[in-house]
Amino acid sequence: MASSSSLHLSQALLARAVYLHSDRVSSLSFPSFSGLKSHSSPCKAATSSSRRSNKVASSSTTIVKATAVETLDQTTEVSLVEKSINTIRFLAIDAVEKANSGHPGLPMGCAPMGHILYDEVMRYNPKNPAWFNRDRFILSAGHGCMLQYALLHLAGYDAVLEEDLKSFRQWGSKTPGHPENFETLGVEVTTGPLGQGIANAVGLALAEKHLAARFNKPDNEIVDHYTYVILGDGCQMEGISNEACSLAGHWGLGKLIALYDDNHISIDGDTEIAFTENVDQRFEALGWHVIWVKNGNTGYDDIRAAIKEAKAVKDKPTLIKVTTTIGFGSPNKANSYSVHGAALGAKEVDATRKNLGWPYEPFHVPEDVKKHWSRHTPEGAALEADWNAKFAEYEKKYKEEAAELKAIITDELPAGWEKALPTYTPESPADATRNLSQQNLNALVKVLPGLLGGSADLASSNMTLLKSYGDFQKDTPEERNVRFGVREHGMGAICNGIALHSPGFIPYCATFFVFTDYMRAAIRISALCEAGVIYVMTHDSIGLGEDGPTHQPIEHLASFRAMPNILMLRPADGNETAGAYKVAVLNRKRPSILALSRQKLPQLPGTSIEGVEKGGYTISDNSSGNKPDVILIGTGSELEIAAAAAEDLRKEGKAVRVVSFVSWELFDGQSDEYKESVLPASVSARVSIEAGSTFGWEKIVGSKGKAIGIDRFGASAPAGKIYKEFGITKEAVIAAAKQLS
Amino acid sequence: MASSSSLHLSQALLARAVYLHSDRVSSLSFPSFSGLKSHSSPCKAATSSSRRSNKVASSSTTIVKATAVETLDQTTEVSLVEKSINTIRFLAIDAVEKANSGHPGLPMGCAPMGHILYDEVMRYNPKNPAWFNRDRFILSAGHGCMLQYALLHLAGYDAVLEEDLKSFRQWGSKTPGHPENFETLGVEVTTGPLGQGIANAVGLALAEKHLAARFNKPDNEIVDHYTYVILGDGCQMEGISNEACSLAGHWGLGKLIALYDDNHISIDGDTEIAFTENVDQRFEALGWHVIWVKNGNTGYDDIRAAIKEAKAVKDKPTLIKVTTTIGFGSPNKANSYSVHGAALGAKEVDATRKNLGWPYEPFHVPEDVKKHWSRHTPEGAALEADWNAKFAEYEKKYKEEAAELKAIITDELPAGWEKALPTYTPESPADATRNLSQQNLNALVKVLPGLLGGSADLASSNMTLLKSYGDFQKDTPEERNVRFGVREHGMGAICNGIALHSPGFIPYCATFFVFTDYMRAAIRISALCEAGVIYVMTHDSIGLGEDGPTHQPIEHLASFRAMPNILMLRPADGNETAGAYKVAVLNRKRPSILALSRQKLPQLPGTSIEGVEKGGYTISDNSSGNKPDVILIGTGSELEIAAAAAEDLRKEGKAVRVVSFVSWELFDGQSDEYKESVLPASVSARVSIEAGSTFGWEKIVGSKGKAIGIDRFGASAPAGKIYKEFGITKEAVIAAAKQLS
Repeated sequence: MASSSSLHLSQALLARAVYLHSDRVSSLSFPSFSGLKSHSSPCKAATSSSRRSNKVASSSTTIVKATAVETLDQTTEVSLVEKSINTIRFLAIDAVEKANSGHPGLPMGCAPMGHILYDEVMRYNPKNPAWFNRDRFILSAGHGCMLQYALLHLAGYDAVLEEDLKSFRQWGSKTPGHPENFETLGVEVTTGPLGQGIANAVGLALAEKHLAARFNKPDNEIVDHYTYVILGDGCQMEGISNEACSLAGHWGLGKLIALYDDNHISIDGDTEIAFTENVDQRFEALGWHVIWVKNGNTGYDDIRAAIKEAKAVKDKPTLIKVTTTIGFGSPNKANSYSVHGAALGAKEVDATRKNLGWPYEPFHVPEDVKKHWSRHTPEGAALEADWNAKFAEYEKKYKEEAAELKAIITDELPAGWEKALPTYTPESPADATRNLSQQNLNALVKVLPGLLGGSADLASSNMTLLKSYGDFQKDTPEERNVRFGVREHGMGAICNGIALHSPGFIPYCATFFVFTDYMRAAIRISALCEAGVIYVMTHDSIGLGEDGPTHQPIEHLASFRAMPNILMLRPADGNETAGAYKVAVLNRKRPSILALSRQKLPQLPGTSIEGVEKGGYTISDNSSGNKPDVILIGTGSELEIAAAAAEDLRKEGKAVRVVSFVSWELFDGQSDEYKESVLPASVSARVSIEAGSTFGWEKIVGSKGKAIGIDRFGASAPAGKIYKEFGITKEAVIAAAKQLS
Repeated sequence: MASSSSLHLSQALLARAVYLHSDRVSSLSFPSFSGLKSHSSPCKAATSSSRRSNKVASSSTTIVKATAVETLDQTTEVSLVEKSINTIRFLAIDAVEKANSGHPGLPMGCAPMGHILYDEVMRYNPKNPAWFNRDRFILSAGHGCMLQYALLHLAGYDAVLEEDLKSFRQWGSKTPGHPENFETLGVEVTTGPLGQGIANAVGLALAEKHLAARFNKPDNEIVDHYTYVILGDGCQMEGISNEACSLAGHWGLGKLIALYDDNHISIDGDTEIAFTENVDQRFEALGWHVIWVKNGNTGYDDIRAAIKEAKAVKDKPTLIKVTTTIGFGSPNKANSYSVHGAALGAKEVDATRKNLGWPYEPFHVPEDVKKHWSRHTPEGAALEADWNAKFAEYEKKYKEEAAELKAIITDELPAGWEKALPTYTPESPADATRNLSQQNLNALVKVLPGLLGGSADLASSNMTLLKSYGDFQKDTPEERNVRFGVREHGMGAICNGIALHSPGFIPYCATFFVFTDYMRAAIRISALCEAGVIYVMTHDSIGLGEDGPTHQPIEHLASFRAMPNILMLRPADGNETAGAYKVAVLNRKRPSILALSRQKLPQLPGTSIEGVEKGGYTISDNSSGNKPDVILIGTGSELEIAAAAAEDLRKEGKAVRVVSFVSWELFDGQSDEYKESVLPASVSARVSIEAGSTFGWEKIVGSKGKAIGIDRFGASAPAGKIYKEFGITKEAVIAAAKQLS
């Protein structure tokens, strides 16, 4: 697999090579990794220049001490605020209109909160979107992405220039149809599928709380940022958001502030038709602080006051219900579903321009608005520079902690980490791969500062406890065992948030393999958004026995092999489990799923970490000249069966090769020569055995081969009995091999 | 596909051939279909006999008028109640012990509520578990299935005899590791995966409310039953339960009564570690009536009073939080996770026997307990007989409604229903298959009384509105458009509940195809529990365009083709969409997923309903002797591309066959001769084209063929552009065909 460091480097270079809009800032010393090591602070001058160039008064006085910036007492003239808000609205309207595709309603309704967040509240450096201590913003209602693109544009992010707004939703643009972190620097996560974003935000806030508890010192609070979210009615209806928000309340994530765009409209019309619960009360029940801003359209001070109040509540996350009008400003379409997901149309755009008094051409940003926002470039640089200075002090005083924190901030794995992986010999005791997995986790946590995770209430079955750590809880957030409760979907999305908080985080999460069905949407987002989450999925077949078909995965291996950018790994024993962890840890931009057995498996001769890295490899062979009579192919718990069948066949004089096919994706990535060396084209006598669907196996065994598997649901009985009844046996392999060779 | 009527008939026969435990009832006239047409009422005598034979006093006086039975003022001696409860506990303990596998904790803690429900509250006929107007009971915390098996055993259900309890969790037994409706008559749905059951129950209660509103008359309330649920902490944590319960509150499902086993223990230990939300308050926020029974272990009267109160609240579902001790009675393991999911062990079983004063052998049901419960056989028969008489009156007076209700109660489709399916010619206008789907739904609703459904807030995108009906809502429950809100997972599970309420229900539900990821666990349960739900999944490829990769399915077709007992259908035009609906409606025990296009597609020459029924078929061919030069294979929106490529190739003199491969599963079910006639083994030049993962296509195109597809995530751009950039084009098909032939 490719190491991910090259991409990160290019991002870092990009961040350094930024074009600075403000000619007032002539030079900035960029850090050598996300946000660290920059000691010059050219920004105080820049800031005072910026102070002169716009009408920010009281806020600007606090800008100098950038890390303590507090602009909630904003006194920017209301007229300029409104102009900025309308700029956001029309950038969204115009981009959707030009694309003739998109969602103008949310940006029009949420422009006030968007403006206040990005212009007055949040701390970020537009020229280094990856600055570690930035406030995070998640648009959980991802369809409203033009809100975020407009804000990034105004704030000075280079990813969203005017031309990018004009190519909204077009091939190759940096402004895709929903926010995608891998396309647009400045976007934190990938949203669109509803509810994912708020759950990601819980992960980001968990990450902050964990790092702050682990690294902050009384004299140096080096980790200190907020996580802001805008979510809509759709996110609120999704079960995943309730799961994640229940955990956020349980964990007391005080620096998570979610603004709920309460606009009473969803695609099917008024929310009255399907969504009449009392959201405020539900969130109170979940342990959140709840505030209601009744007029989110023009009640700017109310929004400001609510955010201020939210920041003052330290022990609970806050939900600010902001009642807005979807499509605010559109005289004929506001407050209706018609403004949700389609361009307004030229006529209504004109009417909206008139209605809001907007005389400008499409995509125009008025000069005073531009000027007003331009201060964020120097201010952001100052924030980062101040933080860098703070980090330098921290590093001087707390050397060890600083090194560990750095390891989490960057994506460079500690040198020699892989030496911690346990190794096994055929003499090592037989064991379930779920137990071997736990040995790996406990070995790795000693060398990987960013490793943390847990299970969805199955820690003692999934074997995921880190024995040298306690539980991450409200009052012990420095610990590294996360207790997710029975909330698989929320768990996956929270891990995505952790992974995307900082490149050195390596979150893992666990449940029974069959329950990947509950979290599949989050796993898919892991794969899409390049979050290197490790999914520890145990009880990976009928081998779990008596729990029966509701608990026995059948089609799951196939279903993930078909998913792009994911590594599906099914190790057979100790060495292969270690190999799977090596692969999973190295692939920081590609999630890995480890399918692990409940039942004991022997340590097989011939297995190796290196073999796993190739995806498929020969573990034993008595043939010569790359011409076995038959090739037996197994994965995971069935590799043992293939090996046993081979032994018997060899006794009968057959030349038999046994191939472990632990990861199809990794094998696909090997050279043709290597593939031919393992599966020579001339050998069509191939038998595969896997306790799962045979779907897809024709690719490996060929049309003349035989795939032994399970193409029905499982059954409730002791594991051995089911294996026998379903024909997942040595005898079946031998019979097939004899028939073919 | 096989018609499902044979299995239903065998079930009905089974119900008629039951062995009657009570020798006091010598003959019962069994109905010709689930519960109808039995006019004899032999049970009053039986009941009075039963009255003499046990100590039920006031309750038995009300038993005579069986349909109005109200036994909440139960005055059975407490000692007998406790004996019954301990019987339940020890049946569970003994079965788990014998299997050395299972979950004794819940049955031990929930035995009191279980006893009260099955012995005092619920109306059912143990000798005809399918009696239409029975109260439904769902054990959402399915791992505690021994509770349900013990109750079914005591109540006289023939599916759970002593020998079945003794073969708990063994191969071929009727008492599998989790409750499975397809294995055990008397179990309503399949649970185990947490949260599914409570959502199924919402579907069952919806079904009752709908039918009651549609068919009840002031003088004849022919539909009138409750839905009871026991759910645990695990169910409460799952997002799906919040989704479904939010809808239950919204719909005001007053006859849904959920008993929440609040035992503070989950697998990882005390719920304090991950679940500290205020559940009562959350349910109040969801619009439920909430009652707390503080002593669920011995507060029998409190449980009775709570259920009575719940029944009195007509406009809201009720959550009864019953605080219990998991593993109640076990001196050393009660109130700990160790009693949750493992046998107690011989020593602790002994200690528990002593502690609860239980002198009996394993699996022993004391005579007085047996006697006490024996009345349910005659009582159940009386209940059904009374209802049958009531139905006979109803039928006389309301002939049309009775016929319609019967069509829902039985699984026989109305004769000639399929004539309603629309047909198309190549001259019919091009249209998106999602629109053609809506034409089918609106045609079918006129002939299928059990068809109802809706979308997860995408009705106007999925095109699922039934134009002649209004919305199923709290005050208009007779309507047939269901508004699920943005709750895919809950939607799927609710539809499973509707489907399993009565065999004639044909629920459909809809969202974007990619969001099957959100509901995959419910879809899998549909397949496993044989619920013939129709999944209307639109926007089925990159063809949706600008919404981008978060919204574009890639691996989804493959992932469902690998799932057992499901029909994955991807129709190409009007005739194929009608064919897909024909298949979906006929398959009442196998769910269907229809993948439908957002974009317009032409009506292709050669497509047909009959072709769809075969799964794969030739739509055009200029070869002879079953020897085309090349076979082009397409599905859905790409069949058009294959057809166009064939036209070009034929102009160049090639003999080209075009095959529509609308459903792999249906094709798999055809004879070898038929398969050979479509895909002759001698023709290895095969090109497939499908805008999705190529995973699995080797099986169809062979190792010498070429599968054109998409093995990466999608992109945000107009659909045509993405097709071109991804090479899903006529040109690519032609090039591949030329290379191969």
